[in-house]
Amino acid sequence: MRLRKVANANEFLQENQDYVILDPYVYKGQWHEYFKNQNPIHIEVGTGKGKFIHELAKANPCINYIGIEVVSSVLIRAVKKSQIEKLDNLILVYADASNLHNIFAEKEIERIYLNFSDPWPKNRHEKRRLTYKKFLSIYKMILVDKGDIHLKTDNQSFFEYSLVSMSQFGMIINYVSLDLHKSDFVGNIMTEYEERFVSLGQKIYRLEAMFR
Amino acid sequence: MRLRKVANANEFLQENQDYVILDPYVYKGQWHEYFKNQNPIHIEVGTGKGKFIHELAKANPCINYIGIEVVSSVLIRAVKKSQIEKLDNLILVYADASNLHNIFAEKEIERIYLNFSDPWPKNRHEKRRLTYKKFLSIYKMILVDKGDIHLKTDNQSFFEYSLVSMSQFGMIINYVSLDLHKSDFVGNIMTEYEERFVSLGQKIYRLEAMFR
Repeated sequence: MRLRKVANANEFLQENQDYVILDPYVYKGQWHEYFKNQNPIHIEVGTGKGKFIHELAKANPCINYIGIEVVSSVLIRAVKKSQIEKLDNLILVYADASNLHNIFAEKEIERIYLNFSDPWPKNRHEKRRLTYKKFLSIYKMILVDKGDIHLKTDNQSFFEYSLVSMSQFGMIINYVSLDLHKSDFVGNIMTEYEERFVSLGQKIYRLEAMFR
Repeated sequence: MRLRKVANANEFLQENQDYVILDPYVYKGQWHEYFKNQNPIHIEVGTGKGKFIHELAKANPCINYIGIEVVSSVLIRAVKKSQIEKLDNLILVYADASNLHNIFAEKEIERIYLNFSDPWPKNRHEKRRLTYKKFLSIYKMILVDKGDIHLKTDNQSFFEYSLVSMSQFGMIINYVSLDLHKSDFVGNIMTEYEERFVSLGQKIYRLEAMFR
């Protein structure tokens, strides 16, 4: 049943390559050409069902967005949003975060969004967390100088871990909110997860961190 | 009444100079001589009624502690603890945090504790917060290379502010807990404030940050 589902999802992605790129490696260093402009490129790693990046792309037509997701059964939900919205400044990519340096050239990206990433709470899974130093060094490679990461999570331990990991890596923490929805932060766009967590009264943590 | 109280407090401090130093400036660069050993010196800025630093000093006889407090009516409570405990490795100092560089020579201190500092929540009072950049540069001056700051607070906004201020100043955040009393941190010593906040079910935030 699960295999059938995945097969169907993959078939759906194959049929919708106007909205999702399945071989992103061929565009390495060519993303501005792909978008046919020199506007900054922001990516979301783990774009999920795509609500966040679609709303962001609609609100900021002069920025190019790439939503990256490795789970095909979730990504099809984002593709369906793209079919409706038809945004020139947004494309979805089917890929794994550990391949980002094969997808993007050095300094090709201006900002990375990490929203509600898997916290991998067990110590032995630390290396899988998207704020582990291995990932930070990949982000640093593909980001412009002073490029930044905007991160949101409902997971306290993952937030604590990310603050320390980023700081120890040499990043500057420029913004911290320990309760985003009671803060004075303006212009927040909620993800699907976030809507659910907030409706349950859970706190959302948010940070912005910059590479030196 | 208040003036009488302060006069009485000052008189009490004058009479108890075995436990509290009223002219700390004469010891600048001479604190190891004062303690008659070369053990590391840790200071608490805003030592309040002194429970934290007395317990710490009892637990760590090979570290010298200096508790600094600017409010004489509170400091007398700490002096009374010292009268009972009579610890060789602890001395209290009546002084203001903005004078630390007149009290300590460069690199004379190994660690600074900031416990439940006044959060000064209004933006126009930012410069009074003990993690404002002016204070961080004083701390950097008196701390040894890689000297660190251990901070606890119950105030969410002050904690958010401190993380960003310290990071932007160039410090490395090596530890963060957003709920100290539910964390696996071992060996916490509670201040008087902390006991009250914890009994009310409030979260305690804690960080360790190091100068590069």
